[in-house]
Order: sequence, then structure tokens, then C-alpha cells
Amino acid sequence: MLNIIGLCGSLRKESYNRKLLMTVQNLLSGKVKFEIIEIGDLPLFNQDIELNPPEAVVSFRKKVGSADGILFATPEYNYSVSAALKNAIEWGSRPYGNAVLNTKPAAVIGASTGMLGTSRAQYHLRQICVQVNIYMMNGPEVMVPFAAKKFDEAGKLIDEATMEKLRLFSSAFIEWVEKMK
Amino acid sequence: MLNIIGLCGSLRKESYNRKLLMTVQNLLSGKVKFEIIEIGDLPLFNQDIELNPPEAVVSFRKKVGSADGILFATPEYNYSVSAALKNAIEWGSRPYGNAVLNTKPAAVIGASTGMLGTSRAQYHLRQICVQVNIYMMNGPEVMVPFAAKKFDEAGKLIDEATMEKLRLFSSAFIEWVEKMK
Amino acid sequence: MLNIIGLCGSLRKESYNRKLLMTVQNLLSGKVKFEIIEIGDLPLFNQDIELNPPEAVVSFRKKVGSADGILFATPEYNYSVSAALKNAIEWGSRPYGNAVLNTKPAAVIGASTGMLGTSRAQYHLRQICVQVNIYMMNGPEVMVPFAAKKFDEAGKLIDEATMEKLRLFSSAFIEWVEKMK
Amino acid sequence: MLNIIGLCGSLRKESYNRKLLMTVQNLLSGKVKFEIIEIGDLPLFNQDIELNPPEAVVSFRKKVGSADGILFATPEYNYSVSAALKNAIEWGSRPYGNAVLNTKPAAVIGASTGMLGTSRAQYHLRQICVQVNIYMMNGPEVMVPFAAKKFDEAGKLIDEATMEKLRLFSSAFIEWVEKMK
Repeated sequence: MLNIIGLCGSLRKESYNRKLLMTVQNLLSGKVKFEIIEIGDLPLFNQDIELNPPEAVVSFRKKVGSADGILFATPEYNYSVSAALKNAIEWGSRPYGNAVLNTKPAAVIGASTGMLGTSRAQYHLRQICVQVNIYMMNGPEVMVPFAAKKFDEAGKLIDEATMEKLRLFSSAFIEWVEKMK
Repeated sequence: MLNIIGLCGSLRKESYNRKLLMTVQNLLSGKVKFEIIEIGDLPLFNQDIELNPPEAVVSFRKKVGSADGILFATPEYNYSVSAALKNAIEWGSRPYGNAVLNTKPAAVIGASTGMLGTSRAQYHLRQICVQVNIYMMNGPEVMVPFAAKKFDEAGKLIDEATMEKLRLFSSAFIEWVEKMK
Repeated sequence: MLNIIGLCGSLRKESYNRKLLMTVQNLLSGKVKFEIIEIGDLPLFNQDIELNPPEAVVSFRKKVGSADGILFATPEYNYSVSAALKNAIEWGSRPYGNAVLNTKPAAVIGASTGMLGTSRAQYHLRQICVQVNIYMMNGPEVMVPFAAKKFDEAGKLIDEATMEKLRLFSSAFIEWVEKMK
Repeated sequence: MLNIIGLCGSLRKESYNRKLLMTVQNLLSGKVKFEIIEIGDLPLFNQDIELNPPEAVVSFRKKVGSADGILFATPEYNYSVSAALKNAIEWGSRPYGNAVLNTKPAAVIGASTGMLGTSRAQYHLRQICVQVNIYMMNGPEVMVPFAAKKFDEAGKLIDEATMEKLRLFSSAFIEWVEKMK
């Protein structure tokens, strides 16, 4: 069974991106192992401590290293990925030559309250992944705009068009991981 | 006298970007007030606490708010700005409608040990600044490649071509701040 | 009276971007001189002929050179600006050191039939403008999604929310040109 | 035998990118079929004629369609890909749903007279390829700076470090095409 990890770039409790990620987790339930890994307790990356990092980093690297594929759920802060997500990638991309993210198949989804659905953040993430040598799936792309209207109070996705897109995305993602791992 | 603040995106002690920033600070000594502000103690941005942030954030916002202009020195981590720098911008760009970075004139410099001199990070930063509504100077651009050869052990810039570029840059930057503030 | 030129990146007759550009032209009627310049007859840029270009290029450069400000209306083709628009910019950015686009204040608008309203193209254009040394306005940004529903058969904009955004944009644009020219 | 086509984004006769492309062509001689396709005679893309295009477009599409992999050699004009290259991609990416570039494995190389070696253009190209659904190889990346010093008068690459990089690149590219086609 494939071992997928999900990384959510937003730290707030009621994050739409976390809800989106959990929706995919549910869709893939029974088909893959899917763990959402917390990244909020990682310290800001500092090269001075990269070879002797705190326990949170060690544990993060271990989980990422054992994954067959990565699913990023990114918010868009200031037209880019969040510092929290970038920080996790920095820890996962070092030390150079022995990075746990290297050659992992991956894909990205995102939700925002505005009209662009995190698209600007997603293209920054794609450029970041070139250097990390992550194999990023081209499409179908999932950018969920106006997210406040698309989840109910319990955090359940209630927009059928988005759900259908996530179904197509989830199948394509699993195929991509199988092909590229 | 203009009040300039410098933000260094690298947290490591021997950061070339910090040295580069200090070189500009020296060049402008006596002409402007120039303070380099620490960003390594800011917590990862989390919207849940943005209205009630810790003291480090309050102090950071206050200093940024009083500045006439911002000078970013950005390393390039994974083809983008560092999480540490992005994190500082996130704190400085919120809350929406009352952000201390809004309408600040700014410019960017960067140094890397590789051949591209942080160029990829600088263009990501420029896109970020569009949303934050920072007025970013177009040029002259300062991208210092092969930084390990350009500073001595005491951290002094010893490359004359780079020094000359920084002189041109510093004059243009001050003109830009005067025009746009 | 300010002399503004509009550049439309789409060559097709019923281009939504042309219609959008004409809407701004109408909004500014009487306040500025506003000419939409054709770019479809420019040959593909080739450095071998840049010093001895055909008449279409000479005429284009002359009009751009006399402008106080530039308004780009960009479609999005393959997540970037159109070849037609990029081509016009290449001609206007050369020869190096004597380029007619150098130091022009500018802004960008765009319309697409999809949900993102040309945003990806607009950020590529912004990066392009850094090198050309065009002074690009940060905002308000105008990205018109689902354009097919927003113009009537005669090409008139019938969406009031978009019209209101264009009014705000037009005022801000003129202020920007006044400030930066 | 794999059928590779090379696309050179510069139209000038003495283009360094053409020389770079021919160097790879030579390195792969005997191992793959490698044809460099001319793109300078394609008209500017116009959606009005996409279903009834001139002969140059028909021929271009046919050649691209039969390829197993694409090698882009891109100059950098105004911090992005050239209009000539973008134009070729526009023709090759349409009509939607039946595009000859769809699902092609590809890679990019570039040479410039400046210090960045076309890196900015390459990342724009990578974003463009997401929509066209081209499978772009992550690395090794080939960015050749200061190109004027690296070729002799006959157009032969005389820089051994660059040659070694191209050897590694060529092997990786062929493996990538085999994997992804």
C-alpha cells in the first residue's frame, strides 16, 4: 500500500487547506496510507543547526523520508507559499545530497477565500520543487476559490463541483506516484 | 534624516547576506539612519494569533512601521526566499488594511555561493511585494554570486566590482526612497 | 494632457482584452489622449535586424516613445503573456541603452474566459518589466474571469462590478503616471 | 531509435543557443534521431486562424507531433522566453484537447552573454509547460553564462566544464524521455 503524507501550509485551526487535505485523505481511505504531518512546531530553518537539529526536525524528516508521495495543501500568503510550508521544505531539502524530499512524487492543492484559489502560491511551489528535485504532477490542478462557501461548519466539503474535481485529482495523483516513485 | 531598516533573510551567524547588508549600512553611514532588524525570534505566522501576537511581533511591527524604506537582503533557499524572510513579511503585511509594510519603498540585494546570486529568490520577492503594496525599485539589481570569495574572514567585502555596484545601488536606493515615501 | 498608449496582447478580432482596453479608453475619454496601438504586424523580433528594422517597428517605437504611460491588456496563453505582446515588448526594449519603453509608467489589466482572469500572465509581465525598467503600478489589480459573460454582443462591458473596478483602476493609473513620468 | 526535436528560441544567425543545441545534437549523434526545427517563419499566433493555419504551422505541428521528446534552447529576452519560442509553443499547444505538445517529455538548456545563463527565462518556460502538460525534466539544469567566451569562431563549444555538463545533461535527458514517453 502506498504511503502518502500530506503537508498543510496553514497553521490556523480552521484552515480551509487542512479541510481540503482531509477531504482527499477521506477519498483515498482504504486505498493508501495517508498521514497528515504537523509542521507548526518546526523551528525557523537555520543552517547553523541543520546537522544537529531539534527532535521535531528529526521526526519530520523521518516521516517524509518514508513516504512514497507528498500532497501539499498550500494557502496563499502575499502571493506565495506560506512561511510555514516553505520552512518545512527547507528542513526536508537539507542537508544537500541527502535530502528526504529528493525524488519524491508530489502534487499540490489549495483553497483561498478569494477568487484565485492559491494559484500564485502554487506556481512558486512548483519552482521550489525543481531545485528540491520533487516530481510534481502537472494536472489536473486544484485551486479552490471562495472557500468560505464550500465547507460546512463541521468542515465538510459541500460543493459538488469541487468534490468531483478532487476525485479526478486523487486518481491522477495515485497514478502519478505509482509511475514516478 | 531617512530612517531605513534592513532585513536579512538568513539566520546563520556567518551569513553572506548579513555581511552584504552591513556593507550597504556602512556605505550609507552618516547619510541615513540604518538599522538591521532581527527576524529570527518571530514565531511562524499563524492567523489565529495575528491580532494578539507575542512581543517579538509587536516590536518588529513598530520598527517597520516607522521606517521610510526597507532594504531586503535575501538568501536563496530552494529557488525562493527563505522561510525566515517570508515569515517576517507575513507578520508585516497583516492585519489586512493596517499593515506596516504597506506603501513602503524598498529594494533587494542578495548573495549566494553559487552562480546565480539569489536571482530566483529576488523575483519571488518582487511578486510578494506586489500584494503587500511595497514600492520595489527596479534596478540596479545586486546579485552577488560566488560569495565565499568576496568577503574576507572578518566579513569585509573585498571584491571591488561588487563594492562599486553597491555604491551605485545605494545612491539609487536613497533616491528611490525619497521619491516614493 | 497625458498621452497614454494601450497595447492589446491578443490579435483576434473579438478579443475580450481589446474590449476591456476600450472600456478604459472610454472611461478616460476627455481626460487623457489614449491611443490603442496595433502590434500584429510587427515581425518576430530578431536581433540581426534590430538596428535596421522594418517600417512597422519604426512606427511602433515612435508612438511608444512619445507616450507618458502604457496600459497593457494581456490575455493568458499557456500561463504566460502572449507571443504577440512579448514581441512588442522586445522591439520596444531594444536597442539596449536607448529603449523607448525605458522608465515608462505602466499598468496591466486582463480578461480570460477561465476563472483566473490572466493572473499568471500578469505576474510574468511584471517580471519582464523589471528588466525593461518600466514602472509598474502595484494595484488595484484588474483580472476579469469568465469574460464571455461580461460583455454584450456589441462588445460593451455589462458587468457593473467589473466596471466599478475599472473606474478605481483608471483613477489610480492616471495618478501613477503623473507621479512616475 | 528515439525521435528528438530541438527548438531554438533565438532567430539570429549566430545564436549561442543554436550552437548549444547543435552541441547536444552532436553528443547524441548515432544514439537518437535529432532534428532542429525552424520556428522563425511561423506567423504570430492568432486564435482566429488556428483551425485554418498557414502551411508553416501545419508542417511545424506535424514534426512536433511525431517527436518522442523536445529539447528547448532558450535565450532570455527581458527576463523571459523569447516571443519566437513562446509563439511556437502557442501553435503547438492548440487547438485545446488536440495539442501536439501535450504529454511530451522535454528539457531546457540556455546560453546568455550575461551572468545568469537564461535562468529567468527557464523558469517562465517551466510554468508555461505546466499548462501545455509537457513533462519537464528537473535537472541537471544547463545555464551557460558568458557565452561569448565559450564558443570559438566556428561555433564550436570550447569550454570543457560546459561540455561535461552537457554530457551529463544529455544522458539524463534521454533517460527522462524513455521513462516519460
